[in-house]
Amino acid sequence: MISPQLPETWSRTVILGVRPAVDSGRFPIKRVTGESVTVTADIVADGHETVAAELLYGPVGGKEESVRLTFLGNDVYRGDFMVGGVGPYTYRVRAWVDMFATWQSVFKRRVDTGSAEAELKSELLEGAGLLKKAVAKAKGEDKKLLQRYVKRFEKGEPEAALEPDVTDLARTYDPREGAAESEPLEILVERPLAQFSSWYSFFPRSTGNPGEHGTLDDAAKRLEYIKEMGFDIAYLTPIHPIGTAYRKGKDNSPTAQPGEPGSPYAIGSEDGGLSDVHPELGGMAAFERFMARAKELGLEVALDIALNASPDHPWVKEHPNWFRQRPDGSIRYAENPPKKYQDIYPFDFESDDWQNLWTALKDVFAFWASKGVRVFRVDNPHTKALPFWSWCIASLREEYPDIVLLSEAFTRPKQMYALAKLGFSQSYTYFTWRYTAAEFAEYLTELFQTDVAEFYRPSFWPNTHDILPPYLRGRAAFQARLVMAATMSASYGVYGPAYELIDDEAHELREENKNNEKYELKTWNLDDPDSLKPLVTRVNQIRLENPALRNNRSLKLHPLTNDQLLAYSKTDGDNKILVIVNFDSANTQSGFVDLDLGALELPQNEPYTAEDLVTGESYTWTGARNYVSLDPNRFPAHVFRLSGRSAARAARQRAL
Amino acid sequence: MISPQLPETWSRTVILGVRPAVDSGRFPIKRVTGESVTVTADIVADGHETVAAELLYGPVGGKEESVRLTFLGNDVYRGDFMVGGVGPYTYRVRAWVDMFATWQSVFKRRVDTGSAEAELKSELLEGAGLLKKAVAKAKGEDKKLLQRYVKRFEKGEPEAALEPDVTDLARTYDPREGAAESEPLEILVERPLAQFSSWYSFFPRSTGNPGEHGTLDDAAKRLEYIKEMGFDIAYLTPIHPIGTAYRKGKDNSPTAQPGEPGSPYAIGSEDGGLSDVHPELGGMAAFERFMARAKELGLEVALDIALNASPDHPWVKEHPNWFRQRPDGSIRYAENPPKKYQDIYPFDFESDDWQNLWTALKDVFAFWASKGVRVFRVDNPHTKALPFWSWCIASLREEYPDIVLLSEAFTRPKQMYALAKLGFSQSYTYFTWRYTAAEFAEYLTELFQTDVAEFYRPSFWPNTHDILPPYLRGRAAFQARLVMAATMSASYGVYGPAYELIDDEAHELREENKNNEKYELKTWNLDDPDSLKPLVTRVNQIRLENPALRNNRSLKLHPLTNDQLLAYSKTDGDNKILVIVNFDSANTQSGFVDLDLGALELPQNEPYTAEDLVTGESYTWTGARNYVSLDPNRFPAHVFRLSGRSAARAARQRAL
Repeated sequence: MISPQLPETWSRTVILGVRPAVDSGRFPIKRVTGESVTVTADIVADGHETVAAELLYGPVGGKEESVRLTFLGNDVYRGDFMVGGVGPYTYRVRAWVDMFATWQSVFKRRVDTGSAEAELKSELLEGAGLLKKAVAKAKGEDKKLLQRYVKRFEKGEPEAALEPDVTDLARTYDPREGAAESEPLEILVERPLAQFSSWYSFFPRSTGNPGEHGTLDDAAKRLEYIKEMGFDIAYLTPIHPIGTAYRKGKDNSPTAQPGEPGSPYAIGSEDGGLSDVHPELGGMAAFERFMARAKELGLEVALDIALNASPDHPWVKEHPNWFRQRPDGSIRYAENPPKKYQDIYPFDFESDDWQNLWTALKDVFAFWASKGVRVFRVDNPHTKALPFWSWCIASLREEYPDIVLLSEAFTRPKQMYALAKLGFSQSYTYFTWRYTAAEFAEYLTELFQTDVAEFYRPSFWPNTHDILPPYLRGRAAFQARLVMAATMSASYGVYGPAYELIDDEAHELREENKNNEKYELKTWNLDDPDSLKPLVTRVNQIRLENPALRNNRSLKLHPLTNDQLLAYSKTDGDNKILVIVNFDSANTQSGFVDLDLGALELPQNEPYTAEDLVTGESYTWTGARNYVSLDPNRFPAHVFRLSGRSAARAARQRAL
Repeated sequence: MISPQLPETWSRTVILGVRPAVDSGRFPIKRVTGESVTVTADIVADGHETVAAELLYGPVGGKEESVRLTFLGNDVYRGDFMVGGVGPYTYRVRAWVDMFATWQSVFKRRVDTGSAEAELKSELLEGAGLLKKAVAKAKGEDKKLLQRYVKRFEKGEPEAALEPDVTDLARTYDPREGAAESEPLEILVERPLAQFSSWYSFFPRSTGNPGEHGTLDDAAKRLEYIKEMGFDIAYLTPIHPIGTAYRKGKDNSPTAQPGEPGSPYAIGSEDGGLSDVHPELGGMAAFERFMARAKELGLEVALDIALNASPDHPWVKEHPNWFRQRPDGSIRYAENPPKKYQDIYPFDFESDDWQNLWTALKDVFAFWASKGVRVFRVDNPHTKALPFWSWCIASLREEYPDIVLLSEAFTRPKQMYALAKLGFSQSYTYFTWRYTAAEFAEYLTELFQTDVAEFYRPSFWPNTHDILPPYLRGRAAFQARLVMAATMSASYGVYGPAYELIDDEAHELREENKNNEKYELKTWNLDDPDSLKPLVTRVNQIRLENPALRNNRSLKLHPLTNDQLLAYSKTDGDNKILVIVNFDSANTQSGFVDLDLGALELPQNEPYTAEDLVTGESYTWTGARNYVSLDPNRFPAHVFRLSGRSAARAARQRAL
């Protein structure tokens, strides 16, 4: 409430609306190391005074730096800075009236409008008075220079008042009296992988000899294949001991046949629980060898953490109060009536012993982090108490500031956004269920062009082991969605080898692969000559070679004359990527794209080069409107690198 | 920052984005007594739990009331309440998981999908357990009813679980465990005049006999004329003693001729200052008689407070340190080089003695409030320190909660908005300088359809004694702008009698009347047969008779086929006003208006009546598209009252 008491101190400036801010600063904005932050603030003062403002920023507990804000017009000021290391940062705005600059601008008007000499002399004395405050702050050579200006002012030299030197010095030693400061806002700075990452998800048990249960040693061999394709993260479906009670059989059958491996999401058996490794995968020793091999290859390993227990999880006996009981004393299994999941016991986050339960769950992450895992894909986080996540993640980041967490929340948008606000680094998205170019245009705008981009880092997945959307049928569709996922979003992932092997055989009732790999061992022919492995490899290489694909904020849509085509660009300085995709996987689609040459910083009337990074073909274009034609039987997308300057240079050379 | 420490308590619900809120709750939203507040909040919880939420609201220091929020979809909840008396109010949201409702909805699904009897019985025991918590809270008959339900649950009667009574009782006595609460947000509740007001501005000294300086006793006679026209507020230009040093003459001449009255904005002479009455106006006694007469007539009086001093103001001698000195020791007058205003000394809000200066300035308002004045038009508030206003207004409202302050800030938009946020009840606007229908559509949308409407109450003035915009030439323009100002905005005002007497003779250089009344006595022929007095009277009557014109938020634009025409409606329940204005004051303009019948709650296919409240003509329209033609030589606007139901009834009667 505005106080009716006379304030002790006050400022002539009022700082309003500092942006970006997530929910008015309740949650941090997110950046990765080396990313920039553009801050704007509305700052008003009375009258026409010259407002000066600076942005103060720095790591929490570290040295605060500052950068001067520039005036954009309409009482809006802007400043930019780059974040350094991983950890929390803060930023805030300080604003004050620059008394000397205010005086100077009025004085200039006096000179320009031909004021009398006596008046100018009198005003110069006023200016000298203001300058003396700067003298008091200055030291060394600057102090001497300022003192000389004071003398010139006092002598009545109007030209002295308008020299660049006095302007600079007065600004440097501005007494900044009565400055206002905004409340500090927070930034969560993560490492670049939190923003820019390619995920490859696979079932480690499907890496053995045909018909045999693969081990993490087999999976370690698979890492080379994954590395060859250029992925950053090898993500393992859960590796914990699998329960035997109510074990699911092939195709989600409620009863497993003897020898069936069960779902790795039914976690825990007499062999251990969430912090143990399934014996059939080779136990903890095999896991450690797997991690060592990943490290050799420079691959990150992501574990899939599903916070629930099979009836055989040791905690069921040790901590029955961590689960909800039914009135008959039995433990409540997961249900979505009429569906029953007797093989899964959810944790009761409201347990009387919640402090110990929460700590134990957090310690699951901490345990694997102690084993070198820094990336986690979290299964269904939206069905766990939201405050658990904010605490758990903040607490983990204290010890392991470099952890990256991917939220597997396919749920309502505000729930997904809330999880991102509460700390998850990345999130699954609706990418999988957007079908038309218009739907993508809308969704990309929401994700990348609004405040959502400040806290929500989307990871685009064309498929997962639980989702095979109806669009994904046939080679062209797999090609198109791969290109889209990998070039639209800085983070993307696939469920392989199903993806590169174009496994498009769908379940009769559900939008997932027929005979879901969750319930059985699969054998994949990695040497299939039709494999998309070469394309995946090329796309990942393009991602690495083009910094434009590391950010999301630069994404820009370009209109087309054919609504079966979508065109979007991403830029980073001179690196300019333009992607055009055909959404029709059956027919050639052609049309004109109208490029926003201004946004792309390309010449309006000179030729520029569009080099297709997938096919290697190169086109010389001139002007905004260009013809494109994409035959899905050849390849359903163009991934162009645009270069204007060299093209212009080439044109000049031709002209010589 | 999100804490890495285990919380002591927590809630499964997270309340995000409570709206409305001005700058995230830093400033209050504004309402007048009897107005409603619609609050929406984004509330998320884990999973698919049934979230319950309520809105808590009430006067600060008074009884807090609550209203249940309803679910709108997409995790958004809504509640409405009405504010009562004048003063600060707060509102906040409380949310929790309704455990019984969550249980009940799953139980219903079990019943619907044919669960086994044993399972239902077991689940009913669970439900009984939840219901017992309600029993513990309930009393009397409700407790007995609930106990009976518990027994029926325990007996295993599935139908008991789905009866409306148990739903209602469980909701009423919901234990509401683990509720989350949002931070309280503030409302400044003012009296209705702060929102709905018609202002009539005049120079009291121009109410005397021709050639004579009018007194406040003459002005008191003028009040009857103002009352006849139906205005709410008689607003007097400054009534204080006028300085003689550098007194301005006719047409802003830098030297006054003997006998010239001077500008009433050059405040202060040996006869007193900001808290005194100019002797030529009859002194304080005449002012008191003026106030008494206004009270008899039921008219509010607004004083025009210009916080600056003429060189003759007593404070110049008493408190020279309240003004800025020039290096030669003289007091700094107002300047906008090359313009000099030697007759005006601005106050130095940064004076070393600022506490006493601020208090003295606040006491000016308090003095006049003690004389019964509750409405102030504040001259150029944006050239005074902004924190002065927030403190001054908050402090004044403590003693005089019914004061209404109009900010005369014709300046940059964010400065105008800042003054509104800091406490001004109303503000002048850019109405005066909007010329085309398209400009109005944009401006009305910004003012009435965005968050601006939560804190900024526009007062639309077609003219002031300082502004005669180029559009205002000829009778039709004056008619059109009057209708627009009075029907677009709940608050409007005119500078009279210049307005009703269609004084459109402009200054050669400035957008103001020729021979500005600020510098001379004027004689107005109130009996001019061409006076717009009858129209003004009718328009004010329409405003009083139609509650739709009391609000701004309901304003809706309706497209037209002619861009020289503008159509907008305002509604309040069944009261529906549609205004169509011709912007061309020279030619008849015709076209089709496409009414949004849905928004107007009018029948799509039945006739409805459009009654022109100015001309008395009545039209029967059917459907959205209707033809309109406005001849400015006749009258440049329609002010329709639309009535659908009676029209529909009439149609039914005709059909019988």
